[in-house]
Amino acid sequence: MKLGDGVEWAIHCAMLLGGLPPGGLLSGKALAEFHGVPENYLLKHLKALTDHGILESLTGPKGGYRLARNPEDISLLDIVEAVEGGKPAFRCTEIRRRGPCALDDSAYPRPCGINRAMQRAEQSYREALAQENLKALTEEFMTTADKRFLPRAVEWFTVNTRMPKS
Amino acid sequence: MKLGDGVEWAIHCAMLLGGLPPGGLLSGKALAEFHGVPENYLLKHLKALTDHGILESLTGPKGGYRLARNPEDISLLDIVEAVEGGKPAFRCTEIRRRGPCALDDSAYPRPCGINRAMQRAEQSYREALAQENLKALTEEFMTTADKRFLPRAVEWFTVNTRMPKS
Repeated sequence: MKLGDGVEWAIHCAMLLGGLPPGGLLSGKALAEFHGVPENYLLKHLKALTDHGILESLTGPKGGYRLARNPEDISLLDIVEAVEGGKPAFRCTEIRRRGPCALDDSAYPRPCGINRAMQRAEQSYREALAQENLKALTEEFMTTADKRFLPRAVEWFTVNTRMPKS
Repeated sequence: MKLGDGVEWAIHCAMLLGGLPPGGLLSGKALAEFHGVPENYLLKHLKALTDHGILESLTGPKGGYRLARNPEDISLLDIVEAVEGGKPAFRCTEIRRRGPCALDDSAYPRPCGINRAMQRAEQSYREALAQENLKALTEEFMTTADKRFLPRAVEWFTVNTRMPKS
C-alpha cells in the first residue's frame, strides 16, 4: 500500500499557500520552484485540489492559486482524498462467491465480513486524517522551524506573491 | 492508495485454514480451488504468510498449509503486513529540504511535521487492524452464513483435508 508523491507535494503546497497575505496568489511555477518538484506533475495535483474546493485558481498571466477556505477547515483527509480519490484501499472482489462451495446470489445479502472489518479500519484512518488540519500543522511548524527559515521565506514571498486587482 | 488482491486472498485462506481439524493441512492447490484464484499467484502470498509465522507449511506430496498459531492470535494487521510489507503508505521524500529556501541538514533535527501527522493516522489504521482477529471474524461468519454453506464446506473439507502421519 503506497500513497503517491502527489500527496506530499499537495500538503506542502497547501501549507505554503496558507502563508500568503489575504487575496494573494502563487503561480504553479512558483509553487513548483519552492518545493523543487516538476511543475507539469504538480499542476495535475493543484487541479485536483482546485476541483475539490481546497484551492481557488485564477487564470491569466497574473493568476495563480490560493486557499479556497481557512486553513483550520482543510484537513489532511480533504487533501489525501482530493489527490488519491476516495476509493477504499481494500477492494473486495467477492471471492467468497467463487469456487466449489459458492452459492447463488441470494446467499450473500450482506457485505463480506472481511470487507467490513477492513473498512472499519480504513474509517479509523480517515477519522485520524480528518483530525489533522493545516492551521495546527502550520502552527507546529512555526514553533519548531529553524530560525533562518522565516526571513528567507518572507523574502521569497515578497518576490513571488501576486496580488490581483480587485 | 490500494491494497493488492493478495490481501483479500490471504485473509480468506487463513480463515479457511482455521476451520481444519487439529493437525490437518490444505494444499496450495486446494486453497486456490476453493477461492477460485490462480494457484501460482496464491503460492507467493502463502509463502509470505509462512515467512511471517502466520502459517506453517509442510513440504512433500502430502504437505500443505495450516495456521501456525491460534486464530485469536492472528490479526488482520499481521496478514496485511505479511502480504504488503510493513512500509508506511506515506513516504516522506523530504521536499522541505529542496528549493530556494532550503537550509543545511542542521536545520532539520526532527522529522517533518507533515510526515509525523500522516504517520499518526497510519498508526490509527494499524491499531484498528490489530483489533480484528480471525477468531472473531470466523464466529461472525458462522452466525451469518447461509445455511446451505456449511454442509458443502464440510464435504469439501472431508475430501481435501490432509492428515500427516505423526
